[in-house]
Amino acid sequence: MSADPGSVERAQRDPATTRKSDFPVLRPTPLRWADLDTFGHVNNAVHYQLMDTAIMGWLGEATGVDVRRLPGFGVVVETSCRYFREISFTMSPIVGIALASIGRSSVRYDVGFFIDDDGPAALARFVHVYIDHETRRPVSVPPQIRSALSQFRLDGAETESPCQPL
Amino acid sequence: MSADPGSVERAQRDPATTRKSDFPVLRPTPLRWADLDTFGHVNNAVHYQLMDTAIMGWLGEATGVDVRRLPGFGVVVETSCRYFREISFTMSPIVGIALASIGRSSVRYDVGFFIDDDGPAALARFVHVYIDHETRRPVSVPPQIRSALSQFRLDGAETESPCQPL
Amino acid sequence: MSADPGSVERAQRDPATTRKSDFPVLRPTPLRWADLDTFGHVNNAVHYQLMDTAIMGWLGEATGVDVRRLPGFGVVVETSCRYFREISFTMSPIVGIALASIGRSSVRYDVGFFIDDDGPAALARFVHVYIDHETRRPVSVPPQIRSALSQFRLDGAETESPCQPL
Amino acid sequence: MSADPGSVERAQRDPATTRKSDFPVLRPTPLRWADLDTFGHVNNAVHYQLMDTAIMGWLGEATGVDVRRLPGFGVVVETSCRYFREISFTMSPIVGIALASIGRSSVRYDVGFFIDDDGPAALARFVHVYIDHETRRPVSVPPQIRSALSQFRLDGAETESPCQPL
Repeated sequence: MSADPGSVERAQRDPATTRKSDFPVLRPTPLRWADLDTFGHVNNAVHYQLMDTAIMGWLGEATGVDVRRLPGFGVVVETSCRYFREISFTMSPIVGIALASIGRSSVRYDVGFFIDDDGPAALARFVHVYIDHETRRPVSVPPQIRSALSQFRLDGAETESPCQPL
Repeated sequence: MSADPGSVERAQRDPATTRKSDFPVLRPTPLRWADLDTFGHVNNAVHYQLMDTAIMGWLGEATGVDVRRLPGFGVVVETSCRYFREISFTMSPIVGIALASIGRSSVRYDVGFFIDDDGPAALARFVHVYIDHETRRPVSVPPQIRSALSQFRLDGAETESPCQPL
Repeated sequence: MSADPGSVERAQRDPATTRKSDFPVLRPTPLRWADLDTFGHVNNAVHYQLMDTAIMGWLGEATGVDVRRLPGFGVVVETSCRYFREISFTMSPIVGIALASIGRSSVRYDVGFFIDDDGPAALARFVHVYIDHETRRPVSVPPQIRSALSQFRLDGAETESPCQPL
Repeated sequence: MSADPGSVERAQRDPATTRKSDFPVLRPTPLRWADLDTFGHVNNAVHYQLMDTAIMGWLGEATGVDVRRLPGFGVVVETSCRYFREISFTMSPIVGIALASIGRSSVRYDVGFFIDDDGPAALARFVHVYIDHETRRPVSVPPQIRSALSQFRLDGAETESPCQPL
C-alpha cells in the first residue's frame, strides 16, 4: 500500500477536533447484548463488524444493486481502529463514513463512531481492494461503486494512490 | 500514543520476510463455521477476536491467575491488521505474539496469523492500556502482567513510551 | 423444567397462522454484514443473539433500570428456534416478544422473527432463570422485572410452573 | 417436522445420566475471549456457533470433501439447547455429536457440551434439511453425507421420519 512495506494506513483525523458532522454519511448501528464482554463494555472486535456493516449497507443503497453480484467484490486488506471511549449496550452508535482515497482497485474509508455530539468513541480506517470472484486477483473498482463514491469530496490530504496486489 | 494525535500504531514487520518463528509465543486459534462470510472466507473482524483470545489466553497461562481479578485490567485502545491471504474454515490459524513495547500503563503487541510455514496470512498490532475497574483511569501495568511479559525480549526498535490517558 | 427431564420447551405457536400482531412487543433488530455465512444467508446462531438483544433491550426500557444491577440476573437455561425462511443482510428483522409463562424464578418468552406481514421467518422460545450474582443459585424474579412483565397478558395455555434449580 | 406444527424437536437425553461417552463423535471447540458476556460466562448464542462448527467440521472430515460443493447443502431448520452449567473462557468444551434420525432430506443430531467427565454443561438438538443451491428446495441427503452418517448407530427411539418442506 505504500513505499514502506511495514506501515499501517494512517487515519489522519484528530479525535480532539473530529465531530460527527465531518462525515458525509452517518449510519446508526445498534449494539447487541452479546457484544458486551466481561468488562461490561463492547468488545473491540465489534467495531469492525459495525464498520463493514455501515460501509456494505451504504454501498448497497448508494449503488442500488446487490454488491455481491458485481464483477468484482471488495476484500478487506487493512483495517485499524483507535478507541477513545467505552461504549455499551443499549447504546446505538452512529458510524460516520468518509472517503479517504480511491485508486484503481482500492478504496480507503475513514470511519468514526459517535454516541453523542462530542468527540468520537473511536476512529478507524478501512481499506477495500476489489478482486475477481474466481481468480481472486485485483480488478478495477466496479463502475457502480465508483459512481456511488463520486458523491464524496476527497479532502485533499490523500489522493489517488497505487494499489499493491493482494 | 504519540506526538502525532492522528497516527495509527505502526507494525514494522514486513510480510515478505516475517515468519512464524519470529514470534516467541504461538497459539492455535481454530475457526468456526459462522466465521465465514458470504465470500467464502473468514470475515475481517474475526481476526480481532482471535488476537485477543490468543493474548488473553496466554496472559492467563503465563501469570497463572485470572487476569480479570487483577487490580487493573487491559482495555484495547488501538488495533490494526493488514490482510495478505484469505483464510477459511476449517483452517486452524496459528497466532504469533511478540511484545512490541511496554510503558507505564500500556503494552503493545505485534501479532501474526499463519496457516503454514510461508508468509503471514495477516499481521496486526494490538495495544492494551491498563485501567482501574472503578475509576476507569489508567493504572500501572499489574506486576503479574509485567513479570509474565519480561520473558519477551524487546526488539530494540521500540522502547518505553508514555501513555496517553484513555 | 418439567416432569420429563429430557423434553425441550414447546413453543406452541403455529407458523401457518402466527403473525407479527400476535406479539405485544415488537423490536427491530438490524443485521450485520458478518451475520451472513457462506450460503448467503444469516447463520442460525445469529437469531439467538437477536432474541436476547430484543429481550434484554426491552427489559431495560420497561423497567427503567440497568437490569445488570438488580439483585438477581437472568441466565438463559433453555432456547429453541425453528427456521422457516432464510433472512439476509440488509434485512432488518422485527423480533416479536410475548410472555409464555412466569414462575418463581423463571420467565419463558415466545419469540417471532418477521421480515414482512406474512408468516414468521422463525419462531423461538427463550427461558430465563434469575440467579444471585454471587451464589449463582435461583432467586425470585426481581420485582422490577415482574412488574414490567405484568403488562403482558398470559395466553392461558401455560400457567405458573415450578422451576428446577439451575 | 411432525404432526404437531407447533412442537419443537425433543432431545430425549437426560442430563442426569448423559455422559461424554454416550456420543460417538467428540470434538474440542475452544472458546474465545469475546464469547464472554457481561455476566462473566459464555453467551448462550455461542453454543450454537460451536455445534455447527463441530458438525460441519466433522462432516468435512468424514466425507473427505468440501461439503459446500455437494449438490445439496444443509440448512438449519431447527435447533434447541438446554443449559445446565455455566462455561467460561479459557475452557475448551468438548462437543459430542450423535445421530438422532435421518430422513430423505433431513438429518437430526443430538449434541452434548462437556467440560469434564461429569454431566453435560448443555444438551442440544440440531436439524439440517438439505436443499438445492439454486431452487432452495429440499433434496435428498447427498450420498457422501449419508455414507458418512452410516457409521452412527441409531438408538432406536427415533427412526426415519418425513420432512416438511423448508
